[in-house]
Amino acid sequence: MTFDQDIKSTVRTIPDYPKKGILFRDITTLLADARAFRRAVDQLVHPWAGSKVDKVAGIEARGFILGGAVAHQLSAGFVPIRKKGKLPHTTVRIAYSLEYGLDEMEMHADAVQPGERVILVDDLIATGGTAEGAVKLLRQIGANVVAACFIIDLPDLGGAAKLRAMDVPVRTLMAFEGH
Amino acid sequence: MTFDQDIKSTVRTIPDYPKKGILFRDITTLLADARAFRRAVDQLVHPWAGSKVDKVAGIEARGFILGGAVAHQLSAGFVPIRKKGKLPHTTVRIAYSLEYGLDEMEMHADAVQPGERVILVDDLIATGGTAEGAVKLLRQIGANVVAACFIIDLPDLGGAAKLRAMDVPVRTLMAFEGH
Repeated sequence: MTFDQDIKSTVRTIPDYPKKGILFRDITTLLADARAFRRAVDQLVHPWAGSKVDKVAGIEARGFILGGAVAHQLSAGFVPIRKKGKLPHTTVRIAYSLEYGLDEMEMHADAVQPGERVILVDDLIATGGTAEGAVKLLRQIGANVVAACFIIDLPDLGGAAKLRAMDVPVRTLMAFEGH
Repeated sequence: MTFDQDIKSTVRTIPDYPKKGILFRDITTLLADARAFRRAVDQLVHPWAGSKVDKVAGIEARGFILGGAVAHQLSAGFVPIRKKGKLPHTTVRIAYSLEYGLDEMEMHADAVQPGERVILVDDLIATGGTAEGAVKLLRQIGANVVAACFIIDLPDLGGAAKLRAMDVPVRTLMAFEGH
């Protein structure tokens, strides 16, 4: 467990952010640590290092950082999944659940070709509402979502289980209890 | 010029976006092209491949994608420069000029240690208002900004010249005339 604990210790916990009672897991301290960032990226996609991955889809905004690195590591293309109204060409759009209410995300309709193998990437999975929406969006344009990868899992919130129930293999590097 | 033209041809131009008369340079088609993305990242930071780079600073949001990949390529840490109100810990903040009016960006105050060598990354440089603010912010916490790298330069808008006047070496991979 030395490796995991080593990486895990670079995540900063901020109490009562963004509101009282929440322990916010701040990944910027992991990203700023060159060794931890590199090892996290390499370990995250290790199972797919030898297989064909066409695209890495990253969720705005922190998923862009990790997704860019993962795409580089796998020599894959990168596809941004953005909040609505930020992409300049024809998009597909989906509503997804936030803690309170709904929001919408979108991606370019031509970002993935039917049948292409795609790995979805974000920094953290909590309730999984965003990731679930992203998987549906990717499948809507014909992507074969071969995995969803997150550095941090908050298992008590059930997001990873939700994705697995959609037949998406999930890989995470570390878990924090509670939320 | 084969290499440059090859990469350049993967950038999609969208007329009249976000408003009439603007030719928007859409980099998502370059990012989605695995070969173009990889070569762009590698070429962009080629001059620093052998030297010590402590951190790569990326500007939200498209600069996160490229910055994550560049940090991975250089085995450096990554530092996000974000729109105000999105970082959970103590920040430094600066106002910067947009086409109309001002906005603010910020970074964690402890994201860079004094004297660390930092490369600033974004997808495109136009008037340079955002990049200029980012350089000032990095220098405010003691960073040694060794370069600013952008895939696309819009030289008619003068941003790269503005950064060079601040003694920041600028590297870009391609230029488009007009704006």
